[in-house]
Parts: sequence; C-alpha cells; structure tokens
Amino acid sequence: MGKTNAGSANKKRPKGALLPGIQGPTDLKKLSVSQLPKLADEIRQAICDQVSKTGGHLAPNLGVVELTIALHYVFDFATDRLLFDVGHQCYPHKLLTGRHELLPKLRQRDGMAGFPEPRESRYDLFSVGHAGTSISTAVGLARADQINGESQRHTVSLIGDASIVNGVAMEGLNNAGTLNRQFLVVLNDNGMSIAKPQGALASYFDLIRVNPHYEDLKKRALGVLKRLPGGSKIEEAYHRLGEVAKAALAHDHLYDHFGLMCLGPIDGHDLPSLINMLKEIKDIDHPVLLHCKTIKGKGFDFATGDPTTFHSPKPFVVEGCRVELKSSGRSFTSAFADAMCGVMARDEKAFAVTAAMPDGTGVNKVMTQFPDRTLDTGICESHAMDMCAGMAKAGLKPFFAVYSTFVQRALDQVFQEVALQELPVRICLDRAGYVGGDGAVHHGFMDISLFAPLPGVVMLAASDETNLVAGLEFMRQYDAGCSVIRYPRDNVAEKPLQAKAPPFELGKANLVKPAVNPEACDVAILAYGVMVYQAVAAADELQQQGYDVAIYDARFAKPVDIDLIRNLVDSGTPVLTVEDHALAGGFGAVVLETCAQHRVPTQLIDRLGMPDRWVYQDSRKNQLAEAGLDAAGIARKVRQMLDRHAKPVIKPPLDIRVNSGIKAVKPTKIAR
Amino acid sequence: MGKTNAGSANKKRPKGALLPGIQGPTDLKKLSVSQLPKLADEIRQAICDQVSKTGGHLAPNLGVVELTIALHYVFDFATDRLLFDVGHQCYPHKLLTGRHELLPKLRQRDGMAGFPEPRESRYDLFSVGHAGTSISTAVGLARADQINGESQRHTVSLIGDASIVNGVAMEGLNNAGTLNRQFLVVLNDNGMSIAKPQGALASYFDLIRVNPHYEDLKKRALGVLKRLPGGSKIEEAYHRLGEVAKAALAHDHLYDHFGLMCLGPIDGHDLPSLINMLKEIKDIDHPVLLHCKTIKGKGFDFATGDPTTFHSPKPFVVEGCRVELKSSGRSFTSAFADAMCGVMARDEKAFAVTAAMPDGTGVNKVMTQFPDRTLDTGICESHAMDMCAGMAKAGLKPFFAVYSTFVQRALDQVFQEVALQELPVRICLDRAGYVGGDGAVHHGFMDISLFAPLPGVVMLAASDETNLVAGLEFMRQYDAGCSVIRYPRDNVAEKPLQAKAPPFELGKANLVKPAVNPEACDVAILAYGVMVYQAVAAADELQQQGYDVAIYDARFAKPVDIDLIRNLVDSGTPVLTVEDHALAGGFGAVVLETCAQHRVPTQLIDRLGMPDRWVYQDSRKNQLAEAGLDAAGIARKVRQMLDRHAKPVIKPPLDIRVNSGIKAVKPTKIAR
Repeated sequence: MGKTNAGSANKKRPKGALLPGIQGPTDLKKLSVSQLPKLADEIRQAICDQVSKTGGHLAPNLGVVELTIALHYVFDFATDRLLFDVGHQCYPHKLLTGRHELLPKLRQRDGMAGFPEPRESRYDLFSVGHAGTSISTAVGLARADQINGESQRHTVSLIGDASIVNGVAMEGLNNAGTLNRQFLVVLNDNGMSIAKPQGALASYFDLIRVNPHYEDLKKRALGVLKRLPGGSKIEEAYHRLGEVAKAALAHDHLYDHFGLMCLGPIDGHDLPSLINMLKEIKDIDHPVLLHCKTIKGKGFDFATGDPTTFHSPKPFVVEGCRVELKSSGRSFTSAFADAMCGVMARDEKAFAVTAAMPDGTGVNKVMTQFPDRTLDTGICESHAMDMCAGMAKAGLKPFFAVYSTFVQRALDQVFQEVALQELPVRICLDRAGYVGGDGAVHHGFMDISLFAPLPGVVMLAASDETNLVAGLEFMRQYDAGCSVIRYPRDNVAEKPLQAKAPPFELGKANLVKPAVNPEACDVAILAYGVMVYQAVAAADELQQQGYDVAIYDARFAKPVDIDLIRNLVDSGTPVLTVEDHALAGGFGAVVLETCAQHRVPTQLIDRLGMPDRWVYQDSRKNQLAEAGLDAAGIARKVRQMLDRHAKPVIKPPLDIRVNSGIKAVKPTKIAR
Repeated sequence: MGKTNAGSANKKRPKGALLPGIQGPTDLKKLSVSQLPKLADEIRQAICDQVSKTGGHLAPNLGVVELTIALHYVFDFATDRLLFDVGHQCYPHKLLTGRHELLPKLRQRDGMAGFPEPRESRYDLFSVGHAGTSISTAVGLARADQINGESQRHTVSLIGDASIVNGVAMEGLNNAGTLNRQFLVVLNDNGMSIAKPQGALASYFDLIRVNPHYEDLKKRALGVLKRLPGGSKIEEAYHRLGEVAKAALAHDHLYDHFGLMCLGPIDGHDLPSLINMLKEIKDIDHPVLLHCKTIKGKGFDFATGDPTTFHSPKPFVVEGCRVELKSSGRSFTSAFADAMCGVMARDEKAFAVTAAMPDGTGVNKVMTQFPDRTLDTGICESHAMDMCAGMAKAGLKPFFAVYSTFVQRALDQVFQEVALQELPVRICLDRAGYVGGDGAVHHGFMDISLFAPLPGVVMLAASDETNLVAGLEFMRQYDAGCSVIRYPRDNVAEKPLQAKAPPFELGKANLVKPAVNPEACDVAILAYGVMVYQAVAAADELQQQGYDVAIYDARFAKPVDIDLIRNLVDSGTPVLTVEDHALAGGFGAVVLETCAQHRVPTQLIDRLGMPDRWVYQDSRKNQLAEAGLDAAGIARKVRQMLDRHAKPVIKPPLDIRVNSGIKAVKPTKIAR
C-alpha cells in the first residue's frame, strides 16, 4: 500500500469492496478478523482520496485505522463510551459508523465535520478540537455510569502521546487512577502527534519504544505491583488478565504512578493482536492504559515521510513519487513568519514561542532562521504562557504565537503571571475569527472579551501584511505591559490599501479610505483587523449606490480611538464597527463601553460581528457571509443604518475633488 | 513548642530574640546553624500571634519555616530566583527579607500582602495566589538566565504536593526536565495542602512516605539511572553529589520520568540536614527535585491537629487547650452550603463538586450529608469542569462550586466541553467581586466577561440567602444548557429585603424597592448580586435628600431584562447599573450591548463597577468604597446622573401612598 497514491481516487471502487457495506459497527462485526486488513486499506484510500481533494487531517487518521477498527470490533459504542482526544483522528471512526456518504463534503457545510460531532451521530459524544480533554470527560461519564448502575457500559479514551502530557490530560489521569471500575485509555503513541513532541516525557516515550534494557528491568519488577497506588487491586486485576495482556504488562510505566495498570507498548497496526488484547482487557474492572505504537501517516510513503506537512494538508496531487500541495495564496501565517523573522533580526532579545504549532503559526520558519531563539513547548499553552512570563521578567521579549482559540487555555496565566505582573509578554493570535472547515471548536471568537478586563493589556489587530509588520514592530517596542495582536486564518490582501502602513500609535485608528467628501460623509466604518477589506468592498458597492463612506482601520480594541469616535459622533456621522469576533465583549462592545465612559452618545453607532450562536464547519467565506461580515452584509447594514437615521435615498452627486482617486458615480434609486 | 499558644502574643518578646535582628538574608547568614531552630520558633510565634489577631494563612506557613530558613541560608535570593507556588506559604520568607514591620497589618492596605508581592520586595518575583505556576515561570527565568549568560544564578521553586499535580505544574515539570542547567524544585509534601489531596498521585506520595518495601526496591534500581530520560546526564550529576544527597537519591520516583533527578523524601524540619542537602545539590547543573516531608501547622498542636480549619483561619483566641475562632456572621459560603444541601435533598441527580476547596466553598458541609454525591478532584479546575461535563452528558446534575478567580482555569473547558455541547453543568462562583485581604490575585472580576460570548450560557447572581436558594433552584431545573451563579466573599444580609425571594424567571429582574412614586421615579438602579443592598442603602440616603429611587435586583446578566430597561428608558427614567465586576465586559456592558442590539437608547444609562486597574489587599469594604461601590458612592453617582440629566435639585414632596413602607421625607436643598 505504501506505493498506492491518491491518484487512484479517480478510479472506480474495486469489486468486492468492504467499506461500502459498513453502515455501522454491526456490519463491521460481521467481518472475520482476516478481512479487516483489507477494510483498513480501503479506509486509508478513501480518506487519502478525499483529503487530496479538499484538504483535511490526513496523517493522524492514517495512523489510527487499525486501532479504530479494533475498538469498534471489540466494544459496542452504541452503549459503550468512546472519547477522542483532539479529535482530528476521527475519520476512520466516522466511516465505520455510517457516515461514508458525508465524506465527499469533508469539513464543508452539511458534510462530514473534521472533528467528532454529536449532531452527526450518537457515536460522537463530544465535539472536540482542543487537546487533552478526553480522559477528564471520560472520568465524568464513567463516574456517572457507575452511579447510574450501568456497570456494563465501558469507557474508552483514545489519546495521542502529545496530548497525554497536556495539563488537563495529566489531571484527568491522576483522577482516573482513583476510579474503581473499567476505564481504558488507549495511548496512540506515534512520537509525532502534530509536530515533534516536546518535553522530557517525549524522551521517556522514545526510551520505552527503543530501549531493550529498559524492558529487561521491567520484567524483574513484577513484585512492585502490589506496592504501587491501587496496587493490590492492580494485582488482583492482573490475575484476571489473559496471557497476551499479561505478557504486555509494563511494570514501571510512568502511568503506574497515576494508579493505572499499564500494558504495552504493542504494535498499533497489528489487527489480530490488537483485537486479542482488547478482548482480554475489555472487562478489567480497574483503570488500564494500553500503550500502542503507531506510525503517523501509515499507508502512504509521502505521509509517513513528512507527517508534519501531511498532518493537515491543503489539497494535493500525487504524481508518481511526487506530491504537490496546491497553492492557495499568501496566508497571514506566512506573513507572520516573515514579519517575525524581521523582528528577530532587529532585536536580539526577541524570542518566538509556540505550543506544538510550529507549522500552524509560522514559527517553523522562524525556527529555521533563529533556532536558538525559538521554543516549542509541546501542547501546553498554560505552561508556555508562564514560561513567557518568566522570560519577560528576566528581560527577554517573548512573542507567543498561538491560535486565538487555544489561548483560552492560558487565560488564567495571562491574568496572573502576565497582566498582574505588568510583564511585556507579546501574544500573537493566529486563527482569530471564523476558521472555516475546522468549525466551532476552532473559531477565535472571544479573545477580546477575555483580555479586555485585564488592566494594562493592549489589544491590536492586523488588517494585512504591512499592518502585521507594523503591529509587530509596535509590540516589539511596547514594554509597558502585555500586548496582543490578532489576525485571521485567511490570506493577506494581494494589493494592500497602503503600500506601507504608517507606524502603530497606541490607541489610534488609521484612516485607510477617506470619504469622497469628508464634510458630508454618510457613514464611517471602523473595521477591526482584516474586516477592513470587506468594508472597503462594501464602500465601493455603496458608492455605486450614491453613498459616501469613510473606512478606518481601527487597529486597537484596547484602548479604542475615542477621540476619533467622538469627532465622528459630534459631526453627526453614523459609525459602524465591524469585526470577526463575537459581538458580546468584542471591539464594538468596547467602543460602546468607552463611549459610555466618555459620555459620547451611542445612538449613531451600530455594530457588526459574530452572532451569539454556534457556527459549524463551512468555508470561512460562507461563515462570514452568514454573519453579514462580507461586503454585501456590511453594505446592507449601512443602508439599514442610513434608513434609520433618515438619510435621503437619493443623494446629490458626489464631490470628486477629494484626493481619494475614487470615481464618483451617478446615484440611482436603490430598492431595499 | 507544641504547647505554646497564641495567647503569648500579648507577652513581650523574650530577651535575646533573633528575629528582630533579621533585616534581610545577610543577617540570617550571620547566625550559626545551631541558632536557627530558635529563629524558627520565633518566626512561628510571630506568625501565629498575628494570624490569631487578623486571620490569614496559618498552617501552610508553620509547615515551611525550616525549609524557608534553609533556602535563604544556602542560596542568595538577591540574585538567585525563588518562586513560591500558590504563595500562601510566604510569611516566613517575608519575615526573613526585611518585612517584619509590615506584619502587624497583615493582609491590610499598606501592610504585608498575604501572597508574594513584587511591589513589597525584590525578593518576591511574582505575585501569585493560583496554584501550579511556580515551575513554569521558573523555567522561563532559568531559560532567560541561561540565554543571558547568567549561569551562576540559581532557580528554586517551592511547591506543595497538592499543587504539583495541577496541570500547569505537570506541564512545567515536563518542560523543566529538558533544561540543561541548575534547576531545583523543592516539593513541600505535607499530605494536606489545602484540604486532603485527591487523585492517585496523592496515594503515591503516601506510599513513598510510609512503605519501606518501596525503599528497598529503589536501592536495587540504581542501574536504571542511565536509561531514564536524560539518564547519562543524571548519572554524571549523581557522581558530583555529596554523600548526604547520594544516600537520598530516589531511584524510581515519579518525577524521574519527567527527567528530574529526584532526592528524598527527607525531613523538612531538620534544619542541619536540610542545609547540608541544599549545599550539596546547590550547584548540580541538572534539574533536581528535592522531596521534603513536612507537617502542616507544625509547632502548634491545634494547627497540626486540624490543618484544614487552620489553613486560613479567621481571628481566633487560644485559651489553654481550647481554640476559639471568632465568629463573623453568616457568609454566602455557609448559605450556599445549606442551599446546596437543599438541592441535593430535592434532587437525587444533583452532585456537588469542588476542586480542593471543600471548606472555602462550603462543599464540606454537603459532603458530610451526601458523601456519595460529593466529589473533590484536587486542585485541577480544568479536569473538574470536564468531569462535570461528562457527568452532565450522562444525565447527572453536577454543581461545580469554585471561586470566580479559579474558574479562569477552566474557561476553555466551559467553552468546549460544556457550552459547545450545550450541557447543563451548573457553575457556582464563590468569591465573585472584591475579596478583601487576599487582594488582586483572588478578586473575581471577570467571570461575566469570560462567559458572555458563549452561546447558550445563562448567568445569574444571588443578592442574599433567599435569592441564593431561589437561584440554585432555578439552576436545578434549568436543563437547556450551562448556568452560572455568582456570589461574593461577604456575609448575607441579616434582614433580607424579601423574606422569601420569588422564583427566578429566565432573564427577569426583580423589583425589590419600588419608587415611592413610580410615576415620577428619579432613577432606577439595576444592581447585580449583592450590590442590591448597597443600592438600597444609597436609596435611603438619596431619599433623605429628596430623590425617589427604585431598586431592581437584576438577577440575570445573560440574558438581561431588556423589556424592563426599555420601559424605564421609554419613560425617561435614568438607569444605573451596579456590579462588583469589572466594568469591561461586565453586567453594565451587557446592558449597553443589549440596548444597542434592541435599539434602546443608552444616554440615560450609567454604570458603576470595578475600575480598570489592579486593586490590592485591603478590607472588602474599603475596596468597594474605593470603587464607588458602597452606598455613598452609589448615591454620589446618582446625584451626578441627575445633575447631568438636569433634574431639579428641589423636588416636590414625595407621594407616600406607595406600598413600600418607606416614609417620605421633606426634601431639602442639597449642596453638591
């Protein structure tokens, strides 16, 4: 199968294919164990074909095909509980639970979500996308099942080696160890969960995998069982194990200390062995950790050879041995990578930090150029934020590049270890706003709300590449406290509004598109971040309809440019704030609050932002449109505002003397 | 010393006292090792005397006296880095670093902060109060020192056994293990950090402490050193250890797996041994964990006998063998305990959950009555929230009682595992608002802001005991999603405004003090939570001055009672929102946003709340007054509002027919 490639996607399904007959786990159980490897191949091919067309998580899913088949073969997850950690490895599970038909629309509206999704199937218990949660939620389910007297209901968590060292997962394990019932943690150890795992425990796992001496020692230590936490119970359980499991008992595994009986490492691709093992340990009434060794990207040489690139690739084409990723323009992430390299070059105190997302954040490029000043902590945003606090305390300038949604993991650290200490940690929030196919688990919709109450924290947004460069330079120089910049999972504008953005000035907006006639401007739009470009497109449309709109790149959400807003309001100009952040607690909310504080009337102010409901997987473009955050939506909102403020529908011809270079058009009557 | 009691506080200092001569660590180092136990006694006595008068953290500080002395005796924390975890055990450290004079005003304005406080002394690096952060910040400092070429600067974290299993701490340890330099973690293991530690690792620590067989096994396992993560370096370091340290080497300690060289457990009260040990390991250029066994409350029988009560007692009196805690009225915490017991009695699906705060949250009382339906997870708010999510998913009704400031640790879990799944987890936020002596690290000032952007989350507040009972009953019945109630670190009103609060109705405020003449009400105050009582007091004052004020208990911050607000605004009544939450993103902010959304003009609306700056230790009363959140401040604000809205200063006589039972007074001219 290593030589199979995604190109075969165009071929018809081979005769005798098994996958189309699997409408649910019941169908799976009808197959013989000897048929399962073929099914695994088909699942791999289906996933690879699909991801090559639409993008999606590839290597993680290829790595867990056999594990997933074995779990569904042995357990009955119609009643048993299966919890995915992070969840991006759920595609095989979805194909085995009757969702084959959703695959062609992977990560699209009404298609298959890229993460577990209870709205899709009763086999998905939690929609997840953040790491480390599966053990803790499973502990809750297991406790509840025990309390409810459902002792036959099994609980299984499937978690990777990078996730299991996340703080929540370790807290979960510590508590799982106190359970007095069946509880299985399957450790999917591929030594490479998203990027290369970090931290001492990663070396520990390496050691377990490769060091035979370590094995020898274990064999001699059986006696220690009864002396470990929960020891007598573990020993009792041991005697109920089958021979396969007994032979795999790891006698001084790290997680022994957490009170779990630890088995393995075993080969996570050997279906018959996996099934035997799971059958033997299925009913052990004590928490068990089964350590499985897997290969990320298994089945396709290009994926095993570069599991980082093929963790979650864009669409790609396989031609012979060559795999080509389809290009899709210059992302904010790429722009950040280059801008950050510029900061590093200008300032030797600057450091780039990532929590297991070097590729996703662009820090990989910084790492190549400045290996000594780049740090990857692994999936532990809380620790990473605190480490940054320590570094800042000692005079360095850490820039922590992290997804907006993941910084939620470090909120308390930003509060106590950063903001309260008034430390100049620089936080760079990628994926702020709607994120498209990743869906609700990954939208960056609440960062402003989280940080706004923190005294001294400065918040800014980058609308394009030149503003990202200027924003980061502002942060580099800003030593008075914590600063936070946000930018979306989107491309930067090919043609920026300004070739070179003027320097950021604390709390000052930037006029990027003046009104044609500033004395009689119909509406001023204050757009936060990349929304500036949607606003400009809206202004162009509105201008066709005879309306004169000025656009400001708001730049700062804390502090907001209250002088500007006051001037606009004083001159009677309606103001619209636009942001790809929740309306609740967002930029527009801060504007309203600041106006209230400064006694600036707010009846002329309207807001556009993300609505107060969950928005599921779709293209970012559609998500923005649905929220009215595209050009059409903004134009619509402006017309509503003008209606409300009783501006005439027919406007006099625009004054074209203003040096905006924009041609005035003959106004026409607009039906609304 | 076990029989000494705090009563001796009134006696004069014995002649030859050492403590008064300690102006800093330099003075400490002048003492001989044989003098140090006497100094330890004096420190204990000073702390006990003070806490008996003012309250404060007692048992934790008594437990670390020798550890702290030994650390300062061996290291030089003028340049070396000493990080406290949680920080409530810093009193001996403060007494050794020139802050004896601040002790009489412990936890008061301009006195000694109850937690490390960099504004007090360069010996305090981070102001902390949340657990688990010391290792991670220390990793940042150590990395920075290494980068800055300061290889002689040592780093030491002092952390308790309950904190070290917190997720952030475990993440920190995992990363500490990768350091290639000196890094010392002192594990202060008293088996009882705040309450009884929870989780499997707690049993593990118990085992290490008591099981000689375990020791035996360790001795045989020296060979494993070179095969553990960082093994060859650990082995190298081993050969540089002195004899004392070599003998204490723990060869299969849990934290070996994290790449740390582990020593101990050793007696944390044996000063000469501690000092020898620290001298021997001081310069080991590899991360080391020194496991010290201590006794919480050491030195006073009443404290060692009941370390939970004397963790952070109120003022108390020692008379012979009797210790009496001074009573200080009925707290919201006590009211919650009883209200929660009521919920548990009415609903067998209800569960009470705490993260290591059974006493602080009142869950201890629930635990006594309903031991099978109460869970203490240890210090791991993230795990606890996820466990609750799992329990709710399985049909139970978990009520997670947690301090507002600590729920910040579980924000991401509330987002993903609770709100996104639309699970009815009930969150009960104690210590919402200013917390008094604990200061900035413990204020509950941002919970509304954190949860407001989460679709479907309902937020309410309890103004007094009867409303807490009614609010919890509302939550018990509310199954549509997550609900959050907040209440302060304060006493409940002795005489509630309403003997029995009417049932909570989603999004509906409760009129608790009507205007004397509703047709001509001067101002309506919407108070969120306990602020209702300050508002009523303000209204009384204002009434004396001729103003007629209506008071609403707002009850809900999400959703707010927009119908009420619209009616008030439509009738021209100025509205004041009052809350002990940050203005940014708080209840008033939600009111402004909701008004904007519903096109209710906001020029008549004013807000009072916590200002956008850090507020340090002081009495809660003073903190509220400083923020204008007492009766005087609210009255002042109302007068300002009326001035602005140009209401006449002289009012006509009030109509006294309204059934409020309030006597109208003859208005007088008020000088403002």
